[in-house]
This record gives sequence, structure tokens and C-alpha cells, in this order.
Amino acid sequence: VADLPGAMMLAEIREQPEALERLLEQELDRVRALAAAARQRRISLLFLAARGTSDHAAVYAKYLCEILAGLPAALAAPSVFTLYDAEVRLDHALVLGISQSGRAADAIEVLRRAREAGQLTGSITNDPDSPMAAAAEHSLCCRAGVERSLPATKTYTTSLALVYALAALLAGREELLDDLRRAPDLVRQALALEPQIAEGAERYRYMEECVVLARGLNQCSALEAALKLSETSYLRAHAYSASDFLHGPIAIVEDGYPCLLFAPSGRGLQPMMEVADELEKREAELLVLSDDPAMLKRARTPLPMPAAPEWLTPLVGIVVAQLFAYHLARVKGRDPDRPRGLKKVTHTF
Amino acid sequence: VADLPGAMMLAEIREQPEALERLLEQELDRVRALAAAARQRRISLLFLAARGTSDHAAVYAKYLCEILAGLPAALAAPSVFTLYDAEVRLDHALVLGISQSGRAADAIEVLRRAREAGQLTGSITNDPDSPMAAAAEHSLCCRAGVERSLPATKTYTTSLALVYALAALLAGREELLDDLRRAPDLVRQALALEPQIAEGAERYRYMEECVVLARGLNQCSALEAALKLSETSYLRAHAYSASDFLHGPIAIVEDGYPCLLFAPSGRGLQPMMEVADELEKREAELLVLSDDPAMLKRARTPLPMPAAPEWLTPLVGIVVAQLFAYHLARVKGRDPDRPRGLKKVTHTF
Repeated sequence: VADLPGAMMLAEIREQPEALERLLEQELDRVRALAAAARQRRISLLFLAARGTSDHAAVYAKYLCEILAGLPAALAAPSVFTLYDAEVRLDHALVLGISQSGRAADAIEVLRRAREAGQLTGSITNDPDSPMAAAAEHSLCCRAGVERSLPATKTYTTSLALVYALAALLAGREELLDDLRRAPDLVRQALALEPQIAEGAERYRYMEECVVLARGLNQCSALEAALKLSETSYLRAHAYSASDFLHGPIAIVEDGYPCLLFAPSGRGLQPMMEVADELEKREAELLVLSDDPAMLKRARTPLPMPAAPEWLTPLVGIVVAQLFAYHLARVKGRDPDRPRGLKKVTHTF
Repeated sequence: VADLPGAMMLAEIREQPEALERLLEQELDRVRALAAAARQRRISLLFLAARGTSDHAAVYAKYLCEILAGLPAALAAPSVFTLYDAEVRLDHALVLGISQSGRAADAIEVLRRAREAGQLTGSITNDPDSPMAAAAEHSLCCRAGVERSLPATKTYTTSLALVYALAALLAGREELLDDLRRAPDLVRQALALEPQIAEGAERYRYMEECVVLARGLNQCSALEAALKLSETSYLRAHAYSASDFLHGPIAIVEDGYPCLLFAPSGRGLQPMMEVADELEKREAELLVLSDDPAMLKRARTPLPMPAAPEWLTPLVGIVVAQLFAYHLARVKGRDPDRPRGLKKVTHTF
């Protein structure tokens, strides 16, 4: 395997259970300290600064903190700070930067200003020696080990794990960490499905574009799956909230148009069934990523995932999408480790 | 003109100066009342609930309120409320719904809950008798008259005008309303450029996809221009923040790939020049919407707009994009008034 194109990406996808185990062993106390500081300061806003794949972890953080902890969350528009030099009043906010490399310059700038102004700051990065980790008062580490492949995989799922732990503790729901402790095994179960996922990829050798749809909490999954497909296979893969998609963009769907539905069990499942109804009327080609047998049966290409606690479905399900993206790139003769025109570190001009 | 396909859209694009004048005459006192209530309650968060085109007005609101008033702003994920039944703590928020029709069910639900919980609520709609206007304590009306064409035009620019007035007054900067009073004339100047814009559209008869890029405050313009192109011409037009685009999606750009740059004068102009540098290296086809002569010179197809105060460039510039979308649809033999698969009112399953 080591010499094949994409060998690093595949190895890193497979390392995820161990990375999550390390995180569970070594990082939860730091998350507890950040949650305690947030409670002590009675924060009333989560203000998230991130870019790229990390932006999708921020979307997960917004949904989960609002749902579990009732804490309103805003995604920062970094240019408000870097381009317009605005002074945004964040006195009662937790300002949280997310960057796998810890080198996203404009997200660091948002943190730096917040900390200077005496606001509570935290970071999620995979490098405890990075500028972002240094910029935040509370720095949380993914513990994913060095990520060498360009498409982020293990740093994404470990970022989600930290976000999940933070949301649970901000909500004062320590018992939700029990579910998180199951994550390594759930990811192992997802990895065991690789043969079926690889087989499903073959058919899409000549697919040039597709849409990825999800509802609710799995919005982050649609965004991340579309990015992985775009990065590794030069597909035009675009993510939509399923409800937005039905009110306009669905016009592009004709006979055979490929639509990947991210539809794990949970409150988003029924709405996604209704999306499948609409797409079937237009004779779309359905790829369905789900643990639900009835939902999977709707698909031309079922992409099964293990059943998981609802709040963890984005973490577990994305592993299936990573495997699909890897195998699709191989089927297309691409090297997913070295996508054309991509650099690992995000910096902003 | 009345019998041509798209006659309603064109008429409504041309009505925008009068709609803005009505708004300036009739609506500013209501905006003042809302801003005063917000100051009195010392709100520390703007929480925005919107869908579709109105979501782009919400993006404008986020940037402008953070830049001018230092007020952090969050875009609601309506499913947090409707699907997960979350109780988000919005005690010190102004919850602002935006919907042209006033019938976006999930945004109305966010407002309804907020008002029940005693929070400050406002709405921006084009129908003062709509359920959204009834749901909010302070309802602001676009005063655009009935919009009959499916693609929103005059309701979008008038929504931006209300957002601008609100941001200026929340910032306590009454003098910024003087610039807003120039908006009708600036839009008239944009409309006068129609012959050149129509001529520019001809070349794109067979364009099937493109990207629309902007930086900073004009992010809303990239989103809205991409939506107008998608709705009226069934293009796959996708909007990106220019900085996100450079770190990944730019991989799709090859010789002749069409890129529309939304690049008016202001702090976003220099970064957009650098984007043009990158795209020229890849021999992309550049369409440039700008008032800056040097920037326009970079374009294969220049789409000129009148010079405008920086904070108003999204309102003035989008008129040029509307005209381009209209004429492109005509060149492609489409009827922009009746896009395939689109309904006017957004409702969420």
C-alpha cells in the first residue's frame, strides 16, 4: 500500500480510531478547564474563527452548542477584523479558533485581538506549538499525530471530538462523554465497511459534478464531504442544506444527476426521506450515506455507516465519505495525497 | 417589452430607484424606532433568520453591523429551532427575520419563539400583512411594491437599504443616511449602463458554469449574483469568498474558465486585484464588475458600475449583476420570469 497514490490519505483515514483514543485519554481535562472558565465568565456567545475544513468543524460547533447548551454561536467573518479593522464587542463571548495546522493567519488575528481585549479565548489545532495555540489562552490539541496527506481527515474527526466534548461540558452534561468514548469503536466499524464503499465508487469514474445534501446537524458533513470529493477527484461537488436546495438549485437535477444524501438516523432522517422523494421524481441518481435500511434501499449506491448516537453522526459518517472520496480518486486515476493547486497551510492574502 | 420573456424581471430591475425613494420617505422612522429599542435594551448580539435571497441580505447585515456598530452578528440555523427544538439563550439579542414574502416558515418560527420569550424582534419583508411582519414587534417594509417575477430584484436592494439604515443608526451615525439618500440616483446610473452590460452577455451563450468571487463586505454580492445567474440561466454558478477560493477550489480553473469578480472600490479592491493575478496565471476568462478603471481593464468582459460609497457598493453593484443575469437568460433563450422548478415562497418541509 505504501507506494500507491493516496497511500498517506488511506493510512491516515485508518489511524482515526487511535487518534480519537489518544484524544480521549489526554485532552479531556483541558476541555473541562475551558468549559469551567466559560461558565465562570457566564459567556453568552460562542464566536468561531476558522477556514476551510476547520470551518466545517465550526459549523458543527454552532449547531451542537446551540442545541445542547442553548449557547448562540456565530461564525466570524475574518475580514471584518483583518480588512475593516472593526472593533466587535465580544465581552461575553468565548472566541474559539479552529485550524488543523494552527497557521490560519486571519483566524489567529481574531484570537489575538480578543485576548488582548481580555476576552476568553480557546483554540483547536493539531499542533500545540503553532501560532494559533500560542494565541489562545486555552489551547486544545487534536492529538492526531502529523497529517501528511493534503486532504484533512484525522484532524477533522478529532476536531469534531473536541467540539463535542466542549458542547457537552458547556451544557453540563458529563454523561454525554460516554457516547464520545464509543467513537473509536464506531469509527472502526465504519472502516470495516471499506470493501463495500470501494465497490460503490467504481461506477462514478466519469462523474464530473454532483451535489451533497444534508439536513440540520449534518450540514457540516455535506460541506466536508463535498470538499473532500472536490479536493481529491477535482469533481465539482457542491453542498447544500436540503431545504435550501429544494427552493431553487434543484432546478439543475435531471435524469441521472448524481446526488449524495447524507442521511443518518436522527431528526434529520425523515426530512431527508422527503428529499429523496423529490429527487426520485426527477430520476436523479441517488447515493445514500446512512445507517437506516429503508433509507439505504432508496439508493442506486448505498454507502452504509454504523448506527451512532445522533450527536456523533457527523463524526462517524464522515469516515465513510472519506473512504468514498479516496476510492473515487483512485478509480479516477488521481493521487489524493497531492491534489493539484492545493497547499496544506491556509494563509490569507 | 411587455410581451418578451423576462419582461417582469426587467421592469422590476428598472423600478428600483423609485422603490428606494419610497423606502427613504416612508420607512426610516420605523428603522429609528427599532434602533432606539435596541439601544435601550443594550443588545449585544444580532441574530438573523432568513432563507434564500434574504439570506444574502442577512450576510450583508452581519458584515455591516459588525463593521459599523461593533455588534456581533450570527446567522440562525433555523433547523436548530424547528428540528431540534433547542432553547437558545437570546436575552440580549435583536432577533431579525428577513423574508421578501414574509412567509419563510422556519424563520417566522425563530421570531415567534423569541418574541414569546420577551426578546427584541424585528422583521424586514415586502409585505406588511405577512405572517413574518405580524410575528415581529418591529416590522420594517421594503416598500418595493408587488414583485411578480420569480427572481427577487427590487425586494433584495430595498432589504439592503433597510439593513444599511439599521446598521448606521445602531452605530449612532445618522450622517451615514446621507449616503443612503444617494442610492436611488446611483442605481439610476447603474441602469444607464444597461446597453454595455447587455452587449457583454452575448459571448456567454454556451457558458454552463462559472464562479463568482468577492472579498469582505461584498460576499453577499457574490452569493446573490451566483443565485441570480443560477435561477435565470440554469447555470451552475457558485460563489466563493476569494480567500477560501484560493485555498482549494481554484484547482478547477483552467484555460478559459469563466470567473466573475465582484470588485468595487474599497478595502476589498486590492485583494481582488491579487485574485485577478492568480486567475490570469491560469488563463481564466475574467468578467469584472467594478467602478475602478484599472480593475475593469483586467477583464475580458468589463461590467462597469458607478462609483459608490464603500458601504453601499453591494446595493449599487448588484443592479449590474441583475441586468447581466437578465440579458444572459435572454441570450440563452430562457424566460427569467419563470425559472424551471422554482416557487416564489420559501417554505421548509
